[in-house]
Amino acid sequence: MPAPLDFYFDFSSPYGYFASREIEGLAARHGRTVVWRPILLGAVFKVTGQGPLLLQPLRGPYATRDLERTARLLKAPFRLPTVFPVNALAASRAFYWLHDRDPAKARTFARAAFDAIFGRGEDLGSAPPVVALAKARGLAGDELAAALEEPAVKARLKDAVDAAVAAGVFGSPFVVVDGEPFWGHDRFAQIDRWLSTGGW
Amino acid sequence: MPAPLDFYFDFSSPYGYFASREIEGLAARHGRTVVWRPILLGAVFKVTGQGPLLLQPLRGPYATRDLERTARLLKAPFRLPTVFPVNALAASRAFYWLHDRDPAKARTFARAAFDAIFGRGEDLGSAPPVVALAKARGLAGDELAAALEEPAVKARLKDAVDAAVAAGVFGSPFVVVDGEPFWGHDRFAQIDRWLSTGGW
Repeated sequence: MPAPLDFYFDFSSPYGYFASREIEGLAARHGRTVVWRPILLGAVFKVTGQGPLLLQPLRGPYATRDLERTARLLKAPFRLPTVFPVNALAASRAFYWLHDRDPAKARTFARAAFDAIFGRGEDLGSAPPVVALAKARGLAGDELAAALEEPAVKARLKDAVDAAVAAGVFGSPFVVVDGEPFWGHDRFAQIDRWLSTGGW
Repeated sequence: MPAPLDFYFDFSSPYGYFASREIEGLAARHGRTVVWRPILLGAVFKVTGQGPLLLQPLRGPYATRDLERTARLLKAPFRLPTVFPVNALAASRAFYWLHDRDPAKARTFARAAFDAIFGRGEDLGSAPPVVALAKARGLAGDELAAALEEPAVKARLKDAVDAAVAAGVFGSPFVVVDGEPFWGHDRFAQIDRWLSTGGW
């Protein structure tokens, strides 16, 4: 049984959104599964000295153009949320809470959350809309709202982010295939090839 | 006659090296020509707050791995120069001096300089090796050494960099196709498609 792909992403990352639409199909074509691993890039930015791409001079306006152009090419619905950068804390905590109960539900939630944030430009930056989304999809009930405030749930996310940073993850999307790291949606073609050939 | 592609690059940029090997073929497949435009990213970094990618925490080590992996995939000779970041001043000045006499010679020089810097890892960070390279290829004689110290030649490069920054260029490679900007070697597939379809 070949190892699953590790798919790291930040819910505030628009290129992570593109990746979230493709990663399962990409893996399945090669008989692989995917472990979804949301992280918070804010913790990484302290190490790399970076900040949110869309807020950077020159690079931000270009990235907006590149995102809209790439979305059209992929025929992916795309709308930048009006509240930016996105606060990914509640969505990320909800993901791991769901994951520890049912990884399939957590994946469904992650896809739905990304579609809400970048497909429709909704503000998912706090607990109420996150809980509402999970409830609307039948993934959780009111217990999720309480869970998002629990220290153990907060610690679960923090530990996941710390482990990712310790593993060298510094961007979104970031995919590790049999130990080989690939950063960026623009490397998905290389991932596809790597999975075909076992490397080069 | 369709407009040429504007190909901006920094001689210190390894992804610019990959681009330099492909841009003419890419343009020619679509009946286009290329205007080569070396810039100095140091001037851009003052605006974007960035620094050389390979010197950044986490991102630098990953980029080295990505470069070597991508070079193997492209079957491109690749060796990072031991002196890094590369000082691109002399090579860039030499380019524009050649360009104002014979653009074809300047392109030949640019390809040769990139091959020296990133194909063989040579230090081209000062005037003597730059002049030697141009002389060895029959592109210039000893007059180039004197030219590299002329205020007018220095100003020619500075003006080119200022014009690029004013035009929104902030990375290497950076290609403008009929007004549409594309940043990064990883966007060459999109450029190819854009040239085929006229956009999407």
